[in-house]
Amino acid sequence: MITENQIQQLIQDNKNHWIKDYKAIVELPSVSSQPVHKPDIEKTARLAATFIEKIGGTSKIFTTKGNPVVWGRIENNPLSPTICIYNHLDVQPAEKGQNGWNRDPFVFTQEDNKFYARGTTDDKGPAMTALWAAQIAKKLQIQTNIEFIWELEEEIGSPNFQEALDQIKPLTKANSIIVSDTVWLTPEQPAMTISMRGLIAFEITVTTGGKDLHSGLCGGAARNPIMELAGIIEHCVDPVTGSIKIKDLDQTYNAPSKELLDEFEKSGFSIAYFKEAHKIQKLRFDNVRDITAAIWAKPTFEVHGIVGGYTGPGNKTVIPNTATAKVSMRLVPGQDPTKAFELAKKHILNYCSDAVIEMDHGILKPFKATTNTIENEKIKQAIDFGFGKKPVFAAEGGSIGAIVPMSETLEVPVYFMGLSLPEDSYHGPNESFQWRQIEGGIKSYVKYFELISK
Amino acid sequence: MITENQIQQLIQDNKNHWIKDYKAIVELPSVSSQPVHKPDIEKTARLAATFIEKIGGTSKIFTTKGNPVVWGRIENNPLSPTICIYNHLDVQPAEKGQNGWNRDPFVFTQEDNKFYARGTTDDKGPAMTALWAAQIAKKLQIQTNIEFIWELEEEIGSPNFQEALDQIKPLTKANSIIVSDTVWLTPEQPAMTISMRGLIAFEITVTTGGKDLHSGLCGGAARNPIMELAGIIEHCVDPVTGSIKIKDLDQTYNAPSKELLDEFEKSGFSIAYFKEAHKIQKLRFDNVRDITAAIWAKPTFEVHGIVGGYTGPGNKTVIPNTATAKVSMRLVPGQDPTKAFELAKKHILNYCSDAVIEMDHGILKPFKATTNTIENEKIKQAIDFGFGKKPVFAAEGGSIGAIVPMSETLEVPVYFMGLSLPEDSYHGPNESFQWRQIEGGIKSYVKYFELISK
Repeated sequence: MITENQIQQLIQDNKNHWIKDYKAIVELPSVSSQPVHKPDIEKTARLAATFIEKIGGTSKIFTTKGNPVVWGRIENNPLSPTICIYNHLDVQPAEKGQNGWNRDPFVFTQEDNKFYARGTTDDKGPAMTALWAAQIAKKLQIQTNIEFIWELEEEIGSPNFQEALDQIKPLTKANSIIVSDTVWLTPEQPAMTISMRGLIAFEITVTTGGKDLHSGLCGGAARNPIMELAGIIEHCVDPVTGSIKIKDLDQTYNAPSKELLDEFEKSGFSIAYFKEAHKIQKLRFDNVRDITAAIWAKPTFEVHGIVGGYTGPGNKTVIPNTATAKVSMRLVPGQDPTKAFELAKKHILNYCSDAVIEMDHGILKPFKATTNTIENEKIKQAIDFGFGKKPVFAAEGGSIGAIVPMSETLEVPVYFMGLSLPEDSYHGPNESFQWRQIEGGIKSYVKYFELISK
Repeated sequence: MITENQIQQLIQDNKNHWIKDYKAIVELPSVSSQPVHKPDIEKTARLAATFIEKIGGTSKIFTTKGNPVVWGRIENNPLSPTICIYNHLDVQPAEKGQNGWNRDPFVFTQEDNKFYARGTTDDKGPAMTALWAAQIAKKLQIQTNIEFIWELEEEIGSPNFQEALDQIKPLTKANSIIVSDTVWLTPEQPAMTISMRGLIAFEITVTTGGKDLHSGLCGGAARNPIMELAGIIEHCVDPVTGSIKIKDLDQTYNAPSKELLDEFEKSGFSIAYFKEAHKIQKLRFDNVRDITAAIWAKPTFEVHGIVGGYTGPGNKTVIPNTATAKVSMRLVPGQDPTKAFELAKKHILNYCSDAVIEMDHGILKPFKATTNTIENEKIKQAIDFGFGKKPVFAAEGGSIGAIVPMSETLEVPVYFMGLSLPEDSYHGPNESFQWRQIEGGIKSYVKYFELISK
């Protein structure tokens, strides 16, 4: 049986050069939503592949008509089972001085035991953690084989992931997948994900004329596209409660059961920590049941961006001719994304027949994990070993596009071992990752590899 | 009695050098909303003053803590009445290649008998027309005295006009004011304005948190400022019909009477020409009564610009922390702008107590002209002389900030003699003015000076 000290010693031996590798990969601005960063995506894939080779694995970069996917394998014993760990190496957009970033998002900095930069926690840090655990497992001659799938399109909804997966399928020997891109409940409470919401994203544009109009000469009789867009939003969702008003959408899923909400209530979810971590002053609800139901077990209709008309200094009393909103809907297990989009589209056009609705994101299906297997128990044991506390089951409100394709194409179970903390600013400014999560994560992985190998 | 031929001859004699002066003043980019153009504002004032001196008048430039106001007087007979003509010499912003401008907005060009550039019609062209008419009146020894008030802050709501007006008051001998900054109904139908709408403008900002949030982690429980702003808009106005929903606002004015709407219907307003002139495909209403009521005799709630969240390419599934809308309300005679603003504010805060509402424009009071005086009849006669067609009474949906202060401070009646056509693109791209409007305008003014002098 591997001891914590053995692992600790190897972590100490490697820490310095690991952090150099971590810095190198984090400083590549692999922003998948911005075509200008395509070269950085390619560089990231190549650098990641060398990391796998460096610790004695084999790697392959699968190209697609979008971004590549890196696959790698560390074979410790051909007769032993194989764990495949999924992470993504693309990141959300970020710019210094914008949206709360007071650092350069692509300069890796360390303060005490915390690392700052875009991608430190979502999801390059967790990817490196699993890689370093594999290095230690190899050194300690743990017999489990370890594979990696590192995607570079997660943040844009994995539109070409299936294409790479079809190439990986003949090569992989994975018996199960571990996805490492989820978040704990609090810094003291690890979580294991039991479900993820799906996602559809689209743009709504209302165009009412050929040019800006004088609001004195035409105002009152001329249509106003910003106001009609506001009307569409209010027609689809109650802006205050978030309750969705799209006709028949409530027929497409089951409201969370009393039993599920009981579980959520007992999960250790802390309203105070949740608000502090996300810098939220006021939530829509004030009790754990309503909040967790809203973020984990109910669909959403969310507007991410809106623009129209004059937005410079002062005012300009024109009636603009067009306005656009970027929208998404999170979907819960049971909901069919295509059906949900059709209902939304119909509902919007029913209000404003001139609206143009364009899907601009891959469809992500919602996912429900199996929770009663022996592997679940072993993951719990491993996390307890790494962090001194067993994880609780919790749902995840986000979406990872690769999960359903992996589960369906590779026909293996998908488990979760998230390492990020809510305060790490997933998708937010001044993103960070803490050394204690890396260290505990390495220990958990090594222990899990050992538990599986028996 | 002056004949049309006498005037025509003098127009022909002067046309060439007049157009040079017109070009010179139009090519000064006197954009009052952009501080960078302050020197152009000053140059415009000085050039305009020389124009008055050149035809034998005296001029004075009154400074304010904002832009100056040019005042001038041509004294033809100290015992005769004085007409004071108001125009403004500042213009709306314009940039080549933007918002439909396919010309350089500050290069004066002539095509056939049409002049193009920002300010040709709003309002430098009409100002020059009145000036040239005064030159002819002097030459023909018409006994009426003529004054000019040329403002340089009209396009930003005349915030410092009162300061200049208080300096003009002891000097002016005006018995009435003519405002020349309004628009005909069609190229064949001159109009005399009987009322103008007032204006209040403000910004509404909703801020819900300290930073962008991950819509998967927080979506459902976290407030969405864009959606709440959309809710505020929908709470204030029906986005489709434009009908205002602000509580008690309907108590602050009288709905247009059947008699007034009858008059509007007979005014010669053409839906087809209105749509063509403003490049509007579809209006909120399809009949003259509803359309003219909406643009002339009812208040509006209009959103001019909105911005919030991610507006770059693709999508970014964040919940932003703030969103802002630029709004104005046009007000009809009888409405008190301060009261209307208070009602709007209360109504908005009632929906969203976190909304921040900031007035960002001078208050413009609505105005109702007197229509049953002898001067009205003489203006009608003069326009018939100049254009061969009597004007109809029509309301104006826009706002001219100087009108109520002039009427109240100088205690004289205000009349209107507009010369612009809807197709001339007031505030829009490729602004223009036609020679036929200048020529007819000169004839009308000269005739009016003669009619008044008797």
